Amino acid sequence: MKPLAIVLMSGGMDSTVCASWALQQGFEVCALHVHYGQKTQEREAQAFNEICAVFRIDKILDIDISHLAAIGGSSLTDSTIDITKANLESSEIPTSYVPFRNANLLSIAVSWAEVIGAQTIIIGAVEEDGSGYPDCRRIFFDAFEAMIQLGTKPGSHIQIQTPLIASDKAEIVTLGMELKAPLELTWSCYSSSEKACGVCDSCALRLRGFAKAGYEDPIEYDQRPDYI
Amino acid sequence: MKPLAIVLMSGGMDSTVCASWALQQGFEVCALHVHYGQKTQEREAQAFNEICAVFRIDKILDIDISHLAAIGGSSLTDSTIDITKANLESSEIPTSYVPFRNANLLSIAVSWAEVIGAQTIIIGAVEEDGSGYPDCRRIFFDAFEAMIQLGTKPGSHIQIQTPLIASDKAEIVTLGMELKAPLELTWSCYSSSEKACGVCDSCALRLRGFAKAGYEDPIEYDQRPDYI
Repeated sequence: MKPLAIVLMSGGMDSTVCASWALQQGFEVCALHVHYGQKTQEREAQAFNEICAVFRIDKILDIDISHLAAIGGSSLTDSTIDITKANLESSEIPTSYVPFRNANLLSIAVSWAEVIGAQTIIIGAVEEDGSGYPDCRRIFFDAFEAMIQLGTKPGSHIQIQTPLIASDKAEIVTLGMELKAPLELTWSCYSSSEKACGVCDSCALRLRGFAKAGYEDPIEYDQRPDYI
Repeated sequence: MKPLAIVLMSGGMDSTVCASWALQQGFEVCALHVHYGQKTQEREAQAFNEICAVFRIDKILDIDISHLAAIGGSSLTDSTIDITKANLESSEIPTSYVPFRNANLLSIAVSWAEVIGAQTIIIGAVEEDGSGYPDCRRIFFDAFEAMIQLGTKPGSHIQIQTPLIASDKAEIVTLGMELKAPLELTWSCYSSSEKACGVCDSCALRLRGFAKAGYEDPIEYDQRPDYI
């Protein structure tokens, strides 16, 4: 039996390359998808499901943390510190960064890992373009790993692998092409669910990565900026 | 302005004593309640709300992690490792221990702490009667604290306090009585939502704690075992 690896998979390019990499390493991939009411949630879920189908992944865990994300959302819409139950019941959906998001995602992954006996968790975090997020640095993942060893059953030996931690977008594209990752199924756009917009930060970063790596991005765009 | 402390409050006795202790220490208490579809969830929520009202707490965050808890539930009902989306959609509600539960709870607390600017998180974990759970030991909380420092904004300085970590139930009762904690509003029973059953593990532990401390438990019981 192959060893199990839980891969955090958003439906985007980085995590899809991670899943391809895990398969190439000989792992059986268990796919953890977490959504939190973001605007393109359904389109990302579609990408995630199509990618799981192509990879023939059958261990899938789909978690909704929208109540948690409301913490971050409230902070955006309300500069005072008053966060009450009432705010959380509102229908406003936050699209923002959730503080300490990776710790929340990894904690869910570790819970699952303990139950199914996986010893490897893979997250497509990138330190380079992490916009300075503290929880995208390998030093953070090392501390998380140390905490796991003390908080799980003895013998669990759960490790966090970050194969893309030192890569830039062009290197991720190159690795994805080499691994024949289904990049045509991935979804990166923040603002549209039909064709990728081509102009949001996420689209721009992706298009530049493909251009720098010397490949054509296989997905359709509403427009491709001139500078690409 | 008083410093903020997020207290993980289940509606039970230990966390209520923690909240009383935090108030006595001069904190403004922010109450985090997490439910996950346990049998007595509504009764616990009632206790939690009544306790918040008595303490005049107005910063309240109520989080549902039932999808996460389904991970643990599946492991109880299915000894194979196949956990699929289908299982998670089932209406079966798990009542079991969630592996790595405290890391999940604390991660939510840290997200909230970052947003509201709290530097203290208080959890009523007890190492003594932790049934050997690895995530109830102070050594685990120390590792978690180190991880927080690396995963949050510089200057967040969020700490985890565990005022009951070395106490037994009788000492917790004594502290609660000294602090005039509203123990009459707390709910500990695992199996009933009317009167506390008096015979489940949680009731037995509580009743023994009161007996050993030399106080009468102010809540009503369906029966009180002879050995108390």
